[in-house]
Amino acid sequence: MCGSLTKTEEIIGGILKGDRKSIARGISLAENDLRQAQKIVAGVYSRTGKAHVVGVTGPGGSGKSTLIEKIIREYRRLNRTVGVIAVDPTSPFTGGAFLGDRIRMQELTTDEGVFIRSMASRNYPGGLARATRDAVKILDAAGNDLVLVETVGAGQSEVDIMRVAQTVVVVHAPGLGDEIQAIKAGTMEIADVFVVNKADRENANKTVMDIQAVMQLSSKVVAWKPPILKTVALTGEGVAELVAKIEQHKSFLEQNVEAKQKLLRDMAEAELVEAIRERTAMSIMDDLRRKGTLSDLLQKILRREVDPASAAEMLLAEKMRER
Amino acid sequence: MCGSLTKTEEIIGGILKGDRKSIARGISLAENDLRQAQKIVAGVYSRTGKAHVVGVTGPGGSGKSTLIEKIIREYRRLNRTVGVIAVDPTSPFTGGAFLGDRIRMQELTTDEGVFIRSMASRNYPGGLARATRDAVKILDAAGNDLVLVETVGAGQSEVDIMRVAQTVVVVHAPGLGDEIQAIKAGTMEIADVFVVNKADRENANKTVMDIQAVMQLSSKVVAWKPPILKTVALTGEGVAELVAKIEQHKSFLEQNVEAKQKLLRDMAEAELVEAIRERTAMSIMDDLRRKGTLSDLLQKILRREVDPASAAEMLLAEKMRER
Repeated sequence: MCGSLTKTEEIIGGILKGDRKSIARGISLAENDLRQAQKIVAGVYSRTGKAHVVGVTGPGGSGKSTLIEKIIREYRRLNRTVGVIAVDPTSPFTGGAFLGDRIRMQELTTDEGVFIRSMASRNYPGGLARATRDAVKILDAAGNDLVLVETVGAGQSEVDIMRVAQTVVVVHAPGLGDEIQAIKAGTMEIADVFVVNKADRENANKTVMDIQAVMQLSSKVVAWKPPILKTVALTGEGVAELVAKIEQHKSFLEQNVEAKQKLLRDMAEAELVEAIRERTAMSIMDDLRRKGTLSDLLQKILRREVDPASAAEMLLAEKMRER
Repeated sequence: MCGSLTKTEEIIGGILKGDRKSIARGISLAENDLRQAQKIVAGVYSRTGKAHVVGVTGPGGSGKSTLIEKIIREYRRLNRTVGVIAVDPTSPFTGGAFLGDRIRMQELTTDEGVFIRSMASRNYPGGLARATRDAVKILDAAGNDLVLVETVGAGQSEVDIMRVAQTVVVVHAPGLGDEIQAIKAGTMEIADVFVVNKADRENANKTVMDIQAVMQLSSKVVAWKPPILKTVALTGEGVAELVAKIEQHKSFLEQNVEAKQKLLRDMAEAELVEAIRERTAMSIMDDLRRKGTLSDLLQKILRREVDPASAAEMLLAEKMRER
């Protein structure tokens, strides 16, 4: 082994040099293998923290993907490099949507300054949010100025994923129905910038007012009041303004050291808790399987002699004692 | 304290007698307080396992909620008691949708044999899936024959929630767009019964064929082949057949002891792992906060001296050593 690099070290080295193949392999490992993912993340971690991570979320039909395409082009015009993680089964990046969309997106991938990767919402070891976070770290360490994360804004898992972002853009569009409900359902708390896309439709102002109305319900005093922008992603109208607003939020965070520190601290704490969760569960289940006691314990649970939470507590107490 | 019951014991006693107020309070505790939730679940657990738990999932616009209303009425006609947990921010049960829908749903709540509870998709301690599972146990222990869980089928969190169900009904409707994508995106693996609702629309057969096509891609050999039913929830057409199919799946599980055992075992294992995760993380974070070392550790992470996963591993090793 003397002098030769292991496969993992090679991938880490490649990522840090911005090598596309290594980035792709690193993300694949992050998706499929928890132990390898950890090695890679540990290897690149000291070089992370430079990229601005922007989350873009919104319901299907809001034109989110077309908007992201235009955001990427605008950042490229400003000479910034962009990494994209699309976590949305219906995203054109992921192979969904119409052929025309897909072709337009694929054009982008021939640009050396853009790296696009889609992740399906299947079951990942350690969860989708974990896999996404690791992929973001890899794109960050690879030297991208901007890392975009796209999700369809629907449930708790999307909110979890969005925790990785320093700036969250929430995209709506007129006439999607249940407007207010969708806005209320979680996205309100996480939005730094609202976008009403398809703003050439006549009822666009109604959607803007809906968002304003919901915002007024929040009594939270905040230093950054989320702006509401109008865009027409198809023509690119309003996209330069949107990118300017994203940059403004970035500057805001940089100037408000306390706000930025709190954000980063909260993100690190959430990630630490998640990692502890994952690791302990693995270690305890491994123990149980090795000792052959898992089956007995599950039988006890099925016979209703003990509930899963109490069983977990007993196991934990035992594990703490035995070392 | 001699002779007097604690508040928690009172709630547990009430739940086991089927008292509606106690059930409501039990579920509120399950939503808001992890420690109380655990006490209540531990207290009722020996009386769970009798209800048939049915998950109903499908995209917004599929008419899922109206269908659920009709399913409830059909089960009531068969003289069964029904508990419902609606985990969908746009569900009429949750206060979304149109007034007419909401009024029709509320009629149901005056029926003593029906208990409907909505849960928002906000941040629950221990996660939404955990809170849902606990609520299902409470409704089960309260003596309901059937417990229905409604989610909007979108992401990983919905798939997690659906793990609580023995029978999963996936609802689609013609013309929702991106049909195949939505079907592929996770629901395929979890469906026991497919429903094409709004089957009076002319392109309903196209949707049925879409589902069949995706099903044929799966090479899995299964003892239960998910049937595809057509319904018109608004008129009630096909609902009796759907309920009969749900009952047939229940009988199938009962007759196939091995399949049912495997299902219950997998569910118990998933729940145990989740409980271990949650508890260890809490215990370690409590330790860190008490010792005042959490802040130092987070600073180290923010200075990129150590990544969160490696930090978690160190903490865990430490925790195991010290006892």
